[in-house]
Amino acid sequence: MQINLKETADFLKAHDNFYILTHQSPDGDTMGSGFGLCCALRKIGKKANVLCSDNFPKRYHFMYEGYVPQKFAPETIVAVDVADKKLLGPGLAQYGDYVDLCIDHHISNTLYAERLLVYPDAAAACEVIFRVLAEMDVTLDRQIAECLYTGIATDTGCFKYANTTKLAHIISAKLMDCGIRLEQINREMFDIKSKARLKVEQYINSSMEYYLDDKCAMAAVTLDTLAEAGLPAEEFEGIAGMSVQLEGVKVGVIIKEKEAGKFKISMRSASDIDVSEICRKFGGGGHVKAAGCAIDGTLDDVKLKLLSGIAPALGIDLWLA
Amino acid sequence: MQINLKETADFLKAHDNFYILTHQSPDGDTMGSGFGLCCALRKIGKKANVLCSDNFPKRYHFMYEGYVPQKFAPETIVAVDVADKKLLGPGLAQYGDYVDLCIDHHISNTLYAERLLVYPDAAAACEVIFRVLAEMDVTLDRQIAECLYTGIATDTGCFKYANTTKLAHIISAKLMDCGIRLEQINREMFDIKSKARLKVEQYINSSMEYYLDDKCAMAAVTLDTLAEAGLPAEEFEGIAGMSVQLEGVKVGVIIKEKEAGKFKISMRSASDIDVSEICRKFGGGGHVKAAGCAIDGTLDDVKLKLLSGIAPALGIDLWLA
Repeated sequence: MQINLKETADFLKAHDNFYILTHQSPDGDTMGSGFGLCCALRKIGKKANVLCSDNFPKRYHFMYEGYVPQKFAPETIVAVDVADKKLLGPGLAQYGDYVDLCIDHHISNTLYAERLLVYPDAAAACEVIFRVLAEMDVTLDRQIAECLYTGIATDTGCFKYANTTKLAHIISAKLMDCGIRLEQINREMFDIKSKARLKVEQYINSSMEYYLDDKCAMAAVTLDTLAEAGLPAEEFEGIAGMSVQLEGVKVGVIIKEKEAGKFKISMRSASDIDVSEICRKFGGGGHVKAAGCAIDGTLDDVKLKLLSGIAPALGIDLWLA
Repeated sequence: MQINLKETADFLKAHDNFYILTHQSPDGDTMGSGFGLCCALRKIGKKANVLCSDNFPKRYHFMYEGYVPQKFAPETIVAVDVADKKLLGPGLAQYGDYVDLCIDHHISNTLYAERLLVYPDAAAACEVIFRVLAEMDVTLDRQIAECLYTGIATDTGCFKYANTTKLAHIISAKLMDCGIRLEQINREMFDIKSKARLKVEQYINSSMEYYLDDKCAMAAVTLDTLAEAGLPAEEFEGIAGMSVQLEGVKVGVIIKEKEAGKFKISMRSASDIDVSEICRKFGGGGHVKAAGCAIDGTLDDVKLKLLSGIAPALGIDLWLA
């Protein structure tokens, strides 16, 4: 059942002993929503814990500084930024069928919860949480504000992406009143990199190849190079964006060998070209500007297949190029 | 004479035939201020041109799409985002002593103009221009809005830096109402890179050296390597930020050889350390988090001198490190 802001606020005020569920491989938005809501509920005298199938990532340390799980029997299950109960992950799967309230912003939400507050036009779940807390008249403190700000900033690429809303800006202005450490948070979220990450980016940049009048960029990471170059697999998150950073590139591709001869492809568009359409030709799918597919074969085969799918979208005849 | 918003609006409404001066090596804020103000003045029936000592950079093409210089004898000289008349550059130096109005946000403004609207707390000159246009009751269109948005976005690193104001967010929300191409502009401003720039970044990353318990990062570009690696000097803008991107690095240094044996140093702080204080030891200066100096000698001498200045600030004994 879809409920509105006021009903959500009333529900939260009327209940207690909350388990707040975040999605697996937690990002800034699910973490910010979880801890922002948890802090707020505790502030008005409720018992609440944040749960995640994975460990809380160290990079969001400022969200859970001083956080200690409370002991209580859970009565109310709330999921935040979780579009599908499958995304709760193995550690929280047991709660999947018992979610009392889901607060989210994904249009793909599978409506698995008993009550739903899903605003698909919101930039982030944290934008929705902010509105819920305003409706509840909770006074925000710096910690809550930093949680919500981080969710909005990370989901919008720091107000850079198309999903940036007017409200994202307006809420950020309001959160600045709470003394958030804006510069420090953004530096940690967007600028600082580990040595391993820098190595991966160096590798991707130096191995990028350009095709089809330089309108298509491709970089490949095989199991061999991964081992040889000592590139840690977990540092590849978000690397697909690097494929469209060169000016003039319209379609970018990162090819990753998952098992010998089995490749996972991430495709990005920096133009009007719908890469989900290209990926569908290979049994994949996704969004207009970010899609993916899987192709088996040799690396050369995979590249040629991809180019044969991309060339027509660029209006280029592969065999004359 | 410092004047206020209303006086500025009245002055602009009462005058005509504007030359709007931008600073040399134009950035997004001076360009956005210049073209935003020019479009607005033309919209209310005034004659106005934007002038710059350098060519208008191609990357800001959307600001001057359809812009044609008008023919008129200048009567009113306005400088935007120009802190010092020296910054007008050789092409506009002739106007330096005749600036009727300066709209700016630099605390270092030398107050060279007859009338001054300088808000040092503003994130960007475009923030001040927005307020002036609001005071003048000019209805913003998409082009004006994109000019002002770009100035605010570029001067704040897309709302990432410490100079980001509440007003920067609130104004951006208002500018979104004018249908700005937010995603496209931010992609062009922040994500797309030329092949030459990627090459420079690759070079800087691969030549970065770490000292003092990895708390200090240094990269050097000598005249020899510049020539050998074919690195274009004009692609080094803003490269200093790369020196503090590795986690744990507190002070970052980029050393550039300008002439044989003469080095220009850019220093960045990613901590509480005041790098302007360090640079002052070498006859330089700047801001707490971004400073510079010049040192002559061999590259090894220069590095050692710098390390001897940086080590105490990090609380490290250079000779025991």
